[in-house]
Amino acid sequence: MFPVPQGFRLAGVHCGIKRNPTKPDLSLVVCDRPGTAAGVFTQNLVHAAPVALDRQRTPTDKFRVLVVNSGNANACTGERGLADARQMGAMAAAACGVEGAHALVLSTGVIGEFLPLEKIDQGIRAASKQLGSDEDHLVLAARGILTTDTVHKLSTREMTIEGRKVQITGMAKGAAMIGPRMATMLCVVMTDATVDPTTAKTLLTEVADDTFNCISVDGHMSTNDSVLLLCSGAAGAAPLAGASLAGFREALREVCTELARAIPNDGEGCTHLVTIDVVGCADRASARRIAKTVAESPLVKTAIAGADPNWGRIVSAAGYSGIPFDPAKVDLELNGTPLYENGSPLKFDKAAVAESIRSNRETHVRLTFREGTASIRFWTTDLTPEYVRLNADYTT
Amino acid sequence: MFPVPQGFRLAGVHCGIKRNPTKPDLSLVVCDRPGTAAGVFTQNLVHAAPVALDRQRTPTDKFRVLVVNSGNANACTGERGLADARQMGAMAAAACGVEGAHALVLSTGVIGEFLPLEKIDQGIRAASKQLGSDEDHLVLAARGILTTDTVHKLSTREMTIEGRKVQITGMAKGAAMIGPRMATMLCVVMTDATVDPTTAKTLLTEVADDTFNCISVDGHMSTNDSVLLLCSGAAGAAPLAGASLAGFREALREVCTELARAIPNDGEGCTHLVTIDVVGCADRASARRIAKTVAESPLVKTAIAGADPNWGRIVSAAGYSGIPFDPAKVDLELNGTPLYENGSPLKFDKAAVAESIRSNRETHVRLTFREGTASIRFWTTDLTPEYVRLNADYTT
Repeated sequence: MFPVPQGFRLAGVHCGIKRNPTKPDLSLVVCDRPGTAAGVFTQNLVHAAPVALDRQRTPTDKFRVLVVNSGNANACTGERGLADARQMGAMAAAACGVEGAHALVLSTGVIGEFLPLEKIDQGIRAASKQLGSDEDHLVLAARGILTTDTVHKLSTREMTIEGRKVQITGMAKGAAMIGPRMATMLCVVMTDATVDPTTAKTLLTEVADDTFNCISVDGHMSTNDSVLLLCSGAAGAAPLAGASLAGFREALREVCTELARAIPNDGEGCTHLVTIDVVGCADRASARRIAKTVAESPLVKTAIAGADPNWGRIVSAAGYSGIPFDPAKVDLELNGTPLYENGSPLKFDKAAVAESIRSNRETHVRLTFREGTASIRFWTTDLTPEYVRLNADYTT
Repeated sequence: MFPVPQGFRLAGVHCGIKRNPTKPDLSLVVCDRPGTAAGVFTQNLVHAAPVALDRQRTPTDKFRVLVVNSGNANACTGERGLADARQMGAMAAAACGVEGAHALVLSTGVIGEFLPLEKIDQGIRAASKQLGSDEDHLVLAARGILTTDTVHKLSTREMTIEGRKVQITGMAKGAAMIGPRMATMLCVVMTDATVDPTTAKTLLTEVADDTFNCISVDGHMSTNDSVLLLCSGAAGAAPLAGASLAGFREALREVCTELARAIPNDGEGCTHLVTIDVVGCADRASARRIAKTVAESPLVKTAIAGADPNWGRIVSAAGYSGIPFDPAKVDLELNGTPLYENGSPLKFDKAAVAESIRSNRETHVRLTFREGTASIRFWTTDLTPEYVRLNADYTT
């Protein structure tokens, strides 16, 4: 059960950007009153036109409509791309009867092609006539933002603020070109809580850092990564503060963790979701960099795909992360079995560890240092021939 | 024709570290007089025992013997690994009748297992009785250092210094776990020129920076990367200085360029050797970082494997390299065809560019910025299902 928070209506339609007519490629999210919107976006210098637009327009307390298309990223499209993104927002605003400056825009798909604005206009008009707030509408909207994903990704949490029931529901997409620096895919989280723009931005930045910035499929940072937090205030609860703020942050973190994990779990061609715990570092940034380096080593990823407990690849990846540590004070566990302790190899049952990788979808790596108390949890995929096949022939 | 520089004798034998008895796994390089030796080594914090030993022992003007084994990296082996490397050097010195402190040691292969010292001792004794200085001996030694390489890698240049013929001949290995920071594989360059230890170290560092530090297969920096320059002085030429130093540097650069290119060209499973030129950067370090980021993007590499001119992946990889640049002032050429100019897409014949990738072993990427005058040339592989298959089952 994925309820839509009060104050929001959604739609997802097919307007012809994707070839397959059964796949929605355009989604609308309408807020029935001026709401709060905040975003975190890709740190890629080569960022898409919609990212530039949304950066200008958030945070805001005048949010009314979001339009998302899949199948075309509107990235590397120069001045014309920026004008197209503005036009797409204006079309959505006009169809929903709100001011253009309050429209947000997201795009995802192929880089370097101009948006098919006529198809998008038709899609927006059709979608604006099909808006609804039940789970079917939510699922259509969640499907309309997908590209190579095999499943749509939803998560929800409920909490009570001074007697008022408040809902947080998010949808995300992403299966490749996933390499975090700020946020690493498209994600839209809706809530009917009352949140001011500054609080929304702070909350989202904090939570994205622990969730969407802790995932990787291939380490390639997208041009279009965006996470939006949309708050209608329609639950009628008091503005977040103190305990309600802390509770909301925790619920938001749970929603974003579920959505973030769902991305590498749906990683292109992947057969394992790999959780990497890095503990005992001097600071969190160091732990993150070590985890990311291990997560993105093709040799680590292929070893896990092959259920090969070739742990030297994990330790050596940590060694080239650029973070200083004492190599004689490193331990490694794979699926709970200690393989390496204080910089020396331990005897272990290779066949049993291989079998534990082979027979489970999830693999757990735990790297322990003795440099401090900071830690991080990071999620990644394995690397299979199927990932290569999927990406060897994407545009042609 | 690959002549052995005067003053050197070599051998390569099978001693049982590799399973296949037709593959040599131990090589000896003996200098008949005290020679100069300098090295550059992996910057991985988790470096192998032989790297630690050779760092202590170079640069030197008392070099006499080098022993190399393949099939076992002697990395992540703690104090025992360091003692084993010392022991291996002492065995080589004893077999060749020289002092132990002058022996250098290289190892490559599986990480995290202790050296089979008995087999190595037998191999060293056998090799020491088969030393020779013709091309057959050189090839056996070059094969003794290989792991997953499909071909041995040799390069040679000749020059004249004040009437004396001087030879430079190098051998290298490497096909994966190739991700440069200082030097990124095993390479041994021999010369009969007269070079003092300080000059040898300076020359090698300069040249390695433009050659071995400009290649990548998978971005995974090895624990064992080492490049050694061994100088017998046996040609009887005057010590390098002025014009002869400049000439020698150029010849050494040619030898190292050939050997460096040979590594990604033999990259595991690779079907394309990709040359990336990055020009117009503020400094060489920036150009290198952009080139390396593009070279290591799995999405760029799979696109080339699939002959897919999906150029957005190249531009977006540059964008997350961490180097600042103006995205509106970037051009891209693929195999000589302009695809992107001043941050906007150009119309091009997609089928023709795809065909140019498909029908050539070499692919050429040229990224132009307008931030300055620094440039770099970098070499990498594509990424194929075969790379994944080869690495999914290496130790088990």
